[in-house]
Amino acid sequence: MNAKIVLLPGDGIGPEVIAEAKKVLEAVGTKFDHEFQFESHLIGGIAIDETGNPLPEPTLSACRSADGILLGAVGGPKWDDPNAKTRPEAGLLKIRKELGLFANLRPITTHEFLIDSSPLRREFVEGTDILFVRELTGGIYFGPSGLEKHDDGTETASSTMVYSTHEVERVVRIAAEAAQKRSGRLTSVDKANVLEASRLWRKVAERVVREEFPDLEYDVVLVDAMAMHLISRPSTFDVVVTGNMFGDILTDEGSMLPGSMGLLPSASLGSDGPGLYEPIHGSAPNIANKGIANPLATILAAAMMLRHSLNLEEEANAIEAAVDSVLRSGARTKDLARGDESTLSTIEMGDRVCSEL
Amino acid sequence: MNAKIVLLPGDGIGPEVIAEAKKVLEAVGTKFDHEFQFESHLIGGIAIDETGNPLPEPTLSACRSADGILLGAVGGPKWDDPNAKTRPEAGLLKIRKELGLFANLRPITTHEFLIDSSPLRREFVEGTDILFVRELTGGIYFGPSGLEKHDDGTETASSTMVYSTHEVERVVRIAAEAAQKRSGRLTSVDKANVLEASRLWRKVAERVVREEFPDLEYDVVLVDAMAMHLISRPSTFDVVVTGNMFGDILTDEGSMLPGSMGLLPSASLGSDGPGLYEPIHGSAPNIANKGIANPLATILAAAMMLRHSLNLEEEANAIEAAVDSVLRSGARTKDLARGDESTLSTIEMGDRVCSEL
Ligand SMILES: CC(C)[C@H](C(=O)O)[C@@H](O)C(=O)O
Ligand SMILES: CC(C)[C@H](C(=O)O)[C@@H](O)C(=O)O
Repeated sequence: MNAKIVLLPGDGIGPEVIAEAKKVLEAVGTKFDHEFQFESHLIGGIAIDETGNPLPEPTLSACRSADGILLGAVGGPKWDDPNAKTRPEAGLLKIRKELGLFANLRPITTHEFLIDSSPLRREFVEGTDILFVRELTGGIYFGPSGLEKHDDGTETASSTMVYSTHEVERVVRIAAEAAQKRSGRLTSVDKANVLEASRLWRKVAERVVREEFPDLEYDVVLVDAMAMHLISRPSTFDVVVTGNMFGDILTDEGSMLPGSMGLLPSASLGSDGPGLYEPIHGSAPNIANKGIANPLATILAAAMMLRHSLNLEEEANAIEAAVDSVLRSGARTKDLARGDESTLSTIEMGDRVCSEL
Repeated sequence: MNAKIVLLPGDGIGPEVIAEAKKVLEAVGTKFDHEFQFESHLIGGIAIDETGNPLPEPTLSACRSADGILLGAVGGPKWDDPNAKTRPEAGLLKIRKELGLFANLRPITTHEFLIDSSPLRREFVEGTDILFVRELTGGIYFGPSGLEKHDDGTETASSTMVYSTHEVERVVRIAAEAAQKRSGRLTSVDKANVLEASRLWRKVAERVVREEFPDLEYDVVLVDAMAMHLISRPSTFDVVVTGNMFGDILTDEGSMLPGSMGLLPSASLGSDGPGLYEPIHGSAPNIANKGIANPLATILAAAMMLRHSLNLEEEANAIEAAVDSVLRSGARTKDLARGDESTLSTIEMGDRVCSEL
C-alpha cells in the first residue's frame, strides 16, 4: 500500500525518538512491500519559536490529508512561562479538537523484566494489562469557561464539564469494541454521586453497553475509588473508559505501574481521518540530544498507527514482536537498565528493532 | 472545660467505632477533668430510613450548637439505588455546605509495622507523612449544573467548577499555617495548563503564600503529575493543598499508601463553628455488627477534634500517644493483623486505648 505519514517530532527528545520510529517504519515498508511517504512538520515549542504558533496552519493541513500522524513530544522549560502568550500544550489541545480525535487509547502493560522496577510490590502489580480509553475532545477541557472581575478586586473563575449523549456513545462504543477483542470486561469511571455531567455519562454508557454489547461484563466505578483500585488491584481491570479530566489523572497514575514509561504508547482516534500516535512520556529536556533516549514507546506507537489507521495488523504485530524479542534478548536503553547492565544508545536500539524485523 | 459533642454514628460499622471513640473521650474527660456532653443524632442511610432525609433538621441544628462533631460512616448497598429520591451522600454534602466546612484535613501517615502491607515497595513509601488540605465547599461539587433535553431525544449535561478569590485564600491560609507548624513545605495542585478555574487558583495561592507566608518552601504541581508522584515519590511531600474534585481523587489515592485505611482520620473545618471529624474509611457493611471493626481511625479523629475544635492540644497528644503505644505493644484488630497474629475485637481495642491513657 501507499500511505502518507506525517511526523511531528516536536521538542526535547522528540526528534531523536521519531527518527528511530521512522527507521522502523521504513524497514516494515521494505519487508512488507509498502510505500510510506514521510513529511515532517512543526508542533509545540519549536513551532512557537519558528512561527509564534504551537500548531501552525501548514502542520494542521498536512495532518488533515495524512493517513497517520506520529508525534514525538512537546514542551520544555523554555516555554513554561505561565504569562507567555501561547504555550506548547495549546498545540496539543488544538490538534485533538481540530482533527476530532475523541478517543485516546492508552494501554498499560506490564513486562516481567520491569516488574521489580515498579513502585508497586510484585504481588500487587503482576499481570496488569489495562486499556484506558479516555474521552479527549469534550468534558471540562473544552466546555465554556469564564473569568469575572468584581468591584472589590476579587475574581471568580469557572470551567464547565459538558457531555452530550452523542459524545458519550461514540467513546463508549470504541471502548466496548476493544473489550470484545480483549477479555470482554469493561469498566466505566465517573463521579455520578456528585456530578450531573457524570450522571448523564453513566446513563448513556449503561444503555450503549446493554443494547449494543450485552455480552460484555460491565461495571461502574467512582473516580475516587478507581484511584485506589489502580494501586490496590490493578490487575483486575481490562478496558476502562472515562471522561477527559478523569482520564488525564487516571492514565497518568496508571503509567507508573509498569516500572517505566519508556514502553507506553498512546493512540488518539476520531471517527474518520487520521489518528495521532505518540509515546506517553514527555519531551525529557534533561536528556535531549544525548543519544540516550528510549525510542521504544514511539516505535510501539508507530505499530498502533499501522494497526488502527492503516489497517496493517500483521505489520503492527511484526513490530511488537520485534520489540518484545529485542527486550527478551536483554537489550536496554539507560532508563530500562538495572544496576550495571550495559545499555544501548537511542540509535542502537532502533537498529536492533530493525534487524529483528 | 465543658463541651458539647455531637455524635453521628451513621451506617454499617459507624455505631461500633463511634462507641469506642466516645469511651476514649470519656476517659480523657476523667483524666484531664473536662465535662463532655454527648448527643447522638441521625445521618445517612439510617436517617433516610427513619425520616426520609439523610440530614434531618434536628441533626443539623444540634450540629450548629455543638463544639465538635464526630461522624462514623454513611452509606451501604441498601441505599445505593441510583434511582432513589435521596441518597446517604447527600447528607454528607449538605452538612459540609451548611456548616461552612471548607477545609478538609487528611493526614496520610505511614507506620513502620504496616509498611510491608502497603501496595508500594518499602523504598518508595517509607517516610511518607503528607497532610492533604482539600477545599470542601466549592469547586465542581457545588457550582451550577444543568441537564438539557433536545428534540431528538439526546441530552446535554453540565457541571461547573467555580472558584473565587476568597475561597482559595482561606483554604490556602489553613494549609500554609499547617505547613508552618510542620516542615515548612507546601505544594498546591491544580490543572492551570487547561482550566480557567485552576489558573485563578494558582494565581491566588501564589499571592497568599508570597505575601503572607514568604518563608514557606512552595511549589505547584499539575494534578496528573501529582497522581504519578504520589506513587513514585510520596515521601517528598509535606502539606498538599488542592480543590474539591482533585482532592477527592488524590486523597483517596494517598489513602492506599500506609497499607491500611484503618488508622486514617480526617477533619473538616470552617472559619467558625464546630468542625466535623471522621475516619476516612467507609461504613464497611460486610463486617458491621460483628464486633471486629477497627475503631482507631475514629479515635484518632476524636483526637483531631480535641486539638482543632476544643483547643485541647495536650489531651489530643495523649490520645495519639496512647494509640501509638497500643500499636507498638502489638495490639491489632483483624484488618491490621498479618499472618496469624492474634487480634482484638472493636471493644477490646477501645479498652486498650483507654487503659493506656
Ligand atoms: C499537556 C496537557 C494539556 C495534556 C492533557 O491534560 O490532556 C497532557 O497531560 C496529556 O494527558 O496529554
Ligand atoms: C461520598 C462522596 C460524596 C464524598 C465526596 O466525593 O466528597 C466522598 O468520596 C468523600 O471524599 O468524602
